[in-house]
Amino acid sequence: MRLQNYFKDNIYANRGMTLEDDINKTNEFYNLQNIALVYKKPTPIQVVQVEYPKNRIREAYFHEPSTLDYTGIYLGKYIEFDAKETMSKTSFPLSNIHKHQMKHMEKVIYFGGISFLIVRFSTLNLTYLLMGNDIIHFEDDYQRKSIPLSYFEEHGFLIPLKYSPRLDYIKVVDKIIKEVK
Amino acid sequence: MRLQNYFKDNIYANRGMTLEDDINKTNEFYNLQNIALVYKKPTPIQVVQVEYPKNRIREAYFHEPSTLDYTGIYLGKYIEFDAKETMSKTSFPLSNIHKHQMKHMEKVIYFGGISFLIVRFSTLNLTYLLMGNDIIHFEDDYQRKSIPLSYFEEHGFLIPLKYSPRLDYIKVVDKIIKEVK
Repeated sequence: MRLQNYFKDNIYANRGMTLEDDINKTNEFYNLQNIALVYKKPTPIQVVQVEYPKNRIREAYFHEPSTLDYTGIYLGKYIEFDAKETMSKTSFPLSNIHKHQMKHMEKVIYFGGISFLIVRFSTLNLTYLLMGNDIIHFEDDYQRKSIPLSYFEEHGFLIPLKYSPRLDYIKVVDKIIKEVK
Repeated sequence: MRLQNYFKDNIYANRGMTLEDDINKTNEFYNLQNIALVYKKPTPIQVVQVEYPKNRIREAYFHEPSTLDYTGIYLGKYIEFDAKETMSKTSFPLSNIHKHQMKHMEKVIYFGGISFLIVRFSTLNLTYLLMGNDIIHFEDDYQRKSIPLSYFEEHGFLIPLKYSPRLDYIKVVDKIIKEVK
């Protein structure tokens, strides 16, 4: 029943969805179909003042994230990734990823986890998955401030937009796991 | 240099530490020694009102957590656990874990992740690791509101408190991974 509703929603209501919406819907699909467990982590917030007895927070600040937004499990493996949209037609600015996040991505890979970025070139309507290693190599080798689209074409994986799941990124992850083995 | 400071801090400054402090210190040690990557997730907060231009949050509320506090990677495997202290000398009240957290724990295990609780009986100065499966079986089989200490003694793993790392829980995880293989 829930699944039916999911498909219904998905077919009629997904024009003009953001990348985040697409990924959330996809994760919901993976969860319902018992394919993978992936969820968005809470935004880090520093709480300064709390009003009692209602526990209402009256003063707090957003923290710069030091990890990537999405964490999950696929075939027992640790997954961590971020999703970013850019209006540019030619490149993805690396300023979208904080230094701490880049360090964290390196750590995740070092410890045997799978880390990547999903980048949407909104104007072109193209969504790519780029593995963490390729992002780190790009940074080390080129010292440039943005990753050109051609680099995504060469090293990334194009993810077509479908009805359901909207953005089947786990297929790419699956392929990579099996290649490594 | 950082490692030296870490040991120094650890030897002289850890009387009266909470379980959370012990786990944070242990995770720091695992990270520095390249053993495992484990971190505490941000507390989920629902933001209602933000004051611009300073991005100061003026109204927000704490959300009930639907996942466990700590997430990490060990040997490429997904780990998720929670840490709880109880003053009781005889049992651990299950009310300490929300229904959503229990469901989430089941999901993590289903998808091949490793999930557990670290429970400290503070008055007895005993810290146990109890695997998610044993917690779920207990709930299903006994329908009781708290897990007696004897169940921890029988099914859990006693973790001794040391200088460094304070609480070497990854040893238990390691043992369990190798038994499963």
